Amino acid sequence: MAEALRIGIAGLGTVGASVARVLRDKAGELTRQCGRPITVTAVSARDRGKDRGVDLGDVAWFDDPVELARSNGIDVFVELMGGDEGAPREAVKAALEAGRHVVTANKALLAMHGVALAEIAEKKGVLLNYEAAVAGGIPVIKTMREAMAGNSVSRVFGILNGTCNYILTRMEAEGLTFEACLKDAQRLGYAEADPTFDIEGNDTAHKLSILTSLAFGTRIAANDIYLEGISNITQADIRAASDLGYRIKLLGVAQRTESGIEQRVHPTMVPTASVIAQVHGVTNAVAIETDILGELLLSGPGAGGNATASAVVGDIADIAKSRPGFQHGPVFGRPAKELKPYKKAQMRSHAGGYFIRLTVHDRVGVFAAVARRMADNDISLESIVQHAAGTNGDDKKTVILVTHETTEAAVRKAVDGVTKDGHLVDKPQVIRIERAG
Amino acid sequence: MAEALRIGIAGLGTVGASVARVLRDKAGELTRQCGRPITVTAVSARDRGKDRGVDLGDVAWFDDPVELARSNGIDVFVELMGGDEGAPREAVKAALEAGRHVVTANKALLAMHGVALAEIAEKKGVLLNYEAAVAGGIPVIKTMREAMAGNSVSRVFGILNGTCNYILTRMEAEGLTFEACLKDAQRLGYAEADPTFDIEGNDTAHKLSILTSLAFGTRIAANDIYLEGISNITQADIRAASDLGYRIKLLGVAQRTESGIEQRVHPTMVPTASVIAQVHGVTNAVAIETDILGELLLSGPGAGGNATASAVVGDIADIAKSRPGFQHGPVFGRPAKELKPYKKAQMRSHAGGYFIRLTVHDRVGVFAAVARRMADNDISLESIVQHAAGTNGDDKKTVILVTHETTEAAVRKAVDGVTKDGHLVDKPQVIRIERAG
Repeated sequence: MAEALRIGIAGLGTVGASVARVLRDKAGELTRQCGRPITVTAVSARDRGKDRGVDLGDVAWFDDPVELARSNGIDVFVELMGGDEGAPREAVKAALEAGRHVVTANKALLAMHGVALAEIAEKKGVLLNYEAAVAGGIPVIKTMREAMAGNSVSRVFGILNGTCNYILTRMEAEGLTFEACLKDAQRLGYAEADPTFDIEGNDTAHKLSILTSLAFGTRIAANDIYLEGISNITQADIRAASDLGYRIKLLGVAQRTESGIEQRVHPTMVPTASVIAQVHGVTNAVAIETDILGELLLSGPGAGGNATASAVVGDIADIAKSRPGFQHGPVFGRPAKELKPYKKAQMRSHAGGYFIRLTVHDRVGVFAAVARRMADNDISLESIVQHAAGTNGDDKKTVILVTHETTEAAVRKAVDGVTKDGHLVDKPQVIRIERAG
Repeated sequence: MAEALRIGIAGLGTVGASVARVLRDKAGELTRQCGRPITVTAVSARDRGKDRGVDLGDVAWFDDPVELARSNGIDVFVELMGGDEGAPREAVKAALEAGRHVVTANKALLAMHGVALAEIAEKKGVLLNYEAAVAGGIPVIKTMREAMAGNSVSRVFGILNGTCNYILTRMEAEGLTFEACLKDAQRLGYAEADPTFDIEGNDTAHKLSILTSLAFGTRIAANDIYLEGISNITQADIRAASDLGYRIKLLGVAQRTESGIEQRVHPTMVPTASVIAQVHGVTNAVAIETDILGELLLSGPGAGGNATASAVVGDIADIAKSRPGFQHGPVFGRPAKELKPYKKAQMRSHAGGYFIRLTVHDRVGVFAAVARRMADNDISLESIVQHAAGTNGDDKKTVILVTHETTEAAVRKAVDGVTKDGHLVDKPQVIRIERAG
């Protein structure tokens, strides 16, 4: 049997402790699967005394993760600290430069510095695996990086943030407000005390930027993503969506268009009968469309210590099965040096259907004025519904429009026009509709 | 750059021709992804003159696939002939013994001889890849063999036959009979002239047997699977399922129980709101439940030349990325010699919910007699509905029972009792209910 693969883990939070436990509890089975033992030989964490449900008495402890990364006592550096700057970045860089394989769950680090790190890994002939960085336990990186060789991707989209999906699921199921559901999510540990990063779409954007690179062979552009969160989604939107046969999900979408690549994160209406519409609660899902395979959908747990640990252990096992001198394909599917620049499609040229909800004054001619603004911008309507907005006969009406395929520019112009006409009582709501199987 | 990987393809039907086309059309991209060119150098097929949409003028033609398999001019033997005996079996064996890697889409061959072939591959240190053999383009083999390292699987189930799912989808959507939908499926090329193998569940069983081995580390036991096809599913079942919040799918299910492993293929009621219930038409889906990851679901095209070719090309690309001396894990996840014997759980001990539809004489005491038979067998009922069966006031009633969790043995005994009581006008219908997320 080959020598044991020696693992150093930096960061022993929920995920790190779970990885250490799985590697111990499943040691026999992993050895059988990989043809060699996998042994945690060193760790780095702040608190040595904390009970993590796993005996780490016999491993080397490092205070400095960078020192652990460079240690001769490990073959694989597992980075589970999180954060895109400082120690995690330095440690991963140091590990790769020292010729250690790296496994990380750090989406922010990859979104910001992934290509530079991939260049080092490929130069050194070591692996940089990151299955856990996107959609937790779902093997979307392996699928896109390995299983789809030769496929040209046209679109990849998904539910990549469990916090948002949990909130939207509860809003729909129980008729609660966004604020009430967020509070519950925080109480249950599904949302941070400061939830901004999740609910405003930044977390989804980080993950999407990695998928975009794998899909289109482009350099990662995490700062160049159209971003809209879910905090302004109301019960009125959710009910109207339901009436129209849609469900609202926060999607990250990357799509190849004639003018470049669209990267966008926004609340999206998907058909209620689609598979992705049945993805509830903290579950994640990714759909990938290609020329050869067609459409593939993966759904599963997007977060949580164990699910994330499963992806990390899978990455470690892939390294254990490899042998010196073997290079299991480039980090982002194509050699990092050959990744093309990201050419952004302008959001204004986005083509698709739109849901528009307007709260207007209840007076003669408003409906006609709205319809006129749509027509003036060549927007063809699939449906138009008008009903009383208030419950006590106030001077308001709701107009809900669903457009056929049009452009973002046309919709913005039309809605600006309606706003200028002075008919609106409230901020207009615009939600994009996404085709989904 | 490394030397080209030389491919020999045996069988140039829809899938084989598609593989050859993709390897040509995507040569540049595949070279970038794999770090070396992939070249078709030899083929074997019956008709040399047939137009397959790809120029094969410059490759070596073999009349005998076994001769191609042993040829020194190839590194990888791609078997796309189909069938579990004769030439395909001999050729794959010959290729492995000659030290060639093998890629195959042949589920029957693997179901019948997979373990023996895996032993040869592992002894010779070559790869035997077969992603296309189960669920077409869905990367379920890669996921179970690689991504789930360290996970203990408790259940794997799926829609593994597109023909059956197409028929059931149309029956539900359009209210047509099984026979009418089968005819349409045949006309559209979704079903064979002799559809027995698909509609009676044998095809699903072959695929399931491979997943069972990957899930539980057991030797393949394709001939030891409980089998029930869809030919006796009627509109009455589909409508009743719908009323109760279920949809009927032909599932293959492998499940670990206290008394052994259940392998079963049968029409199954799954909750209408579950993800797998939204998998329509010829699409396939596989759900896998494990201790660490939790529940993962993959859905996508289960058949078709291009989707299947995508899986074959992915398998070839994995070989192209490997280097001599590298062994990418065992063929069925664990070394073939260490696979445990398959210990079958008796179908009579299967535990779950049941749907029972009885057509009974419309007379006093029948309902009470049915209820008594259930109670006598400790079957607790979730719901019981009785209504007139006929449209013109005939002497028949339908009784539909949904049980809480009980056993197959209890249900069979209860239904036998009802039959003996002499109340049944027609054959009783029993459909198992499967928990699905």
